[in-house]
Amino acid sequence: MAPTVAEEAVAGANKQQQPGKAAALAARDASGRLEPLTITRRYEPYVTYPLCRSTGDDDVAIKILYCGICHSDLHSIKNEWNNAMYPVVPGHEIAGVVTEVGKNVTKFKPGDRVGVGCMVNSCQSCTSCDDGFENNCSNIIFTYNSVDRDGTVTYGGYSSNVVVHERFVVRFPDAMPLDRGAPLLCAGITVYTPMKYHGLNSPGKHVGVVGLGGLGHVAVKFAKAFGMKVTVISSSPAKKEEAMERLGADAFVVSKNGEEMKNAAGTMDGIINTVSANVPVAPYMGLLKPNGKMIMVGLPEKPLEIPPFDLIMGSKTLAGSCIGGMRDTQEMIDVAAKHGVTADVEVVGAEYVNEAMERLAKADVRYRFVIDIGNTLKTSSD
Amino acid sequence: MAPTVAEEAVAGANKQQQPGKAAALAARDASGRLEPLTITRRYEPYVTYPLCRSTGDDDVAIKILYCGICHSDLHSIKNEWNNAMYPVVPGHEIAGVVTEVGKNVTKFKPGDRVGVGCMVNSCQSCTSCDDGFENNCSNIIFTYNSVDRDGTVTYGGYSSNVVVHERFVVRFPDAMPLDRGAPLLCAGITVYTPMKYHGLNSPGKHVGVVGLGGLGHVAVKFAKAFGMKVTVISSSPAKKEEAMERLGADAFVVSKNGEEMKNAAGTMDGIINTVSANVPVAPYMGLLKPNGKMIMVGLPEKPLEIPPFDLIMGSKTLAGSCIGGMRDTQEMIDVAAKHGVTADVEVVGAEYVNEAMERLAKADVRYRFVIDIGNTLKTSSD
Repeated sequence: MAPTVAEEAVAGANKQQQPGKAAALAARDASGRLEPLTITRRYEPYVTYPLCRSTGDDDVAIKILYCGICHSDLHSIKNEWNNAMYPVVPGHEIAGVVTEVGKNVTKFKPGDRVGVGCMVNSCQSCTSCDDGFENNCSNIIFTYNSVDRDGTVTYGGYSSNVVVHERFVVRFPDAMPLDRGAPLLCAGITVYTPMKYHGLNSPGKHVGVVGLGGLGHVAVKFAKAFGMKVTVISSSPAKKEEAMERLGADAFVVSKNGEEMKNAAGTMDGIINTVSANVPVAPYMGLLKPNGKMIMVGLPEKPLEIPPFDLIMGSKTLAGSCIGGMRDTQEMIDVAAKHGVTADVEVVGAEYVNEAMERLAKADVRYRFVIDIGNTLKTSSD
Repeated sequence: MAPTVAEEAVAGANKQQQPGKAAALAARDASGRLEPLTITRRYEPYVTYPLCRSTGDDDVAIKILYCGICHSDLHSIKNEWNNAMYPVVPGHEIAGVVTEVGKNVTKFKPGDRVGVGCMVNSCQSCTSCDDGFENNCSNIIFTYNSVDRDGTVTYGGYSSNVVVHERFVVRFPDAMPLDRGAPLLCAGITVYTPMKYHGLNSPGKHVGVVGLGGLGHVAVKFAKAFGMKVTVISSSPAKKEEAMERLGADAFVVSKNGEEMKNAAGTMDGIINTVSANVPVAPYMGLLKPNGKMIMVGLPEKPLEIPPFDLIMGSKTLAGSCIGGMRDTQEMIDVAAKHGVTADVEVVGAEYVNEAMERLAKADVRYRFVIDIGNTLKTSSD
């Protein structure tokens, strides 16, 4: 019988000649152009545990097979948030196979199908961490472009392999494909968390989804999985057919159409706003029922402006939500697998990544590029 | 034995010669000057039920003994919200004694000590009403300056008596004084509702109260009654002693003091913002813990400005809250009575009302004026 992908991955990793080395795609300046780079992952050359040379005691070493391209990656490589520490190796929608585990690791073993999302560590001891909200830890370490505990800068998933503390690794259910599942680790948890914590996950409720991109299309799918009525709100009438026929939305409102906005006024229990452009948000508040909630998951540059009257009359809520904790991330992908929720992806080779970025900048993708790392990124041992 | 206040009130009402007539204080133009005016309350001259001439079948007739002066009253009589329908008889913090009830009324009987807050009717059949949130009903009828079902304009509590559907009447617990309890019907429910629905009512939590006026001082008292840590946030350092020694706040932060704001950063589970001046609200978001919530109950004129980053990082919430439903209003006053929560009031005579308004405009009151209607407002039968 031919070896499985997992078996091959483990075997390949064990043959690795240069511990800690990984192939990667990196941007070296604000041009954002991604080029091959060999990077170093942390490893423990002196440990005695068999085969444990790539990991610390609590670490999981992962051969990356797929990595989604998030819009944050584009912002980061072009230094649009003014915080790039070049070289930047982006990627925080990572799916692959465990190749080694540290001696304290209990949740994973070599061969397991796993994923890594937006963070790779936190203090693990504050109230937020204790409560399962590592995403809110003030010492969060992001998967890339973040200073790790050892002072090095973290490198993301546009890379052949990665080493991550087991707490920040999620198990892929058998039913969840690695390529279509990878984007859930950012896009999925980003919309799942506010739906869970703001009560927008129960049958019969009506949720609006503003913006139909990487986040929005997954929000529609989760909402339908929860048995909710879903209305997509978009500035682009051209997305109506797509939203309703392909994604199963129940209704579509063109945000610039006053008549349609008026007809939808006061009908929604909540809105997930995925738009990161500087679009006025106040008009959406009018779509909410009393006690309704709009949750921002996009990150516009300019301040949101809300007339107090729009918030107070009807006791409405404007909230923000930032990814999600690790327990919720595991729950999210389990729920997604159960209901068949996956991202709509266009799988591309590593050599296509710069073109993919150009298309992403024009929103020319439905809805997520995923890099086939396993088959197309040349590793240092090739 | 001398008759009680309640017995006298009922006896007086039954001697009334002109059914439907009431003495009132009304503003006739945007000068806001309040002058005596005889108004008509709805009544049923032809009903056969004994003594029921002042009420419809579901109505409760109330002799008003006290009425609080809310800042909204000042806005309304001066037409600062551009919606005044003169003459305006303000007042929505009404406490008094039942004098008559309609034949369908089951909750009240003559002699009962009762109150009426910000609303006197709603559709009573929409989802909001069915769920107990009459405050969110789109057909809410406010206690004054609102068009009632019969097309007349409602008149508030600066008046000798009022007739209200029993659904919108609350019972005063024996332990709740009418004068110090009256302001709870607006100020109390306005802060109680967001504390209840945003989880800011459990021991050990830390709540900030922005602004120490009519609403703020009651918020501090409820928070202490709930066993919470309370920090008062104010632009006025002079209020520190008052906040901590008289009201029992645990801490005080001067909002313009960068050092104090920095030291309090990330410490609060929630904030009740009672300020209705156009003060930037974004700095307060930094005081919240992750998942923290700031609820606006003041109504500034200009839009609130919130950088999305401040909302999304830490998954924070900015909400509005508008008074409360009738079930919650009854619960609020019961809870207040149980814990000894009352408003700090300065009781004034009807003849002092214009001076009180001038002082209120300068925030020269700790913390609520209450008009002694029963003893000082001359009635039409006097």
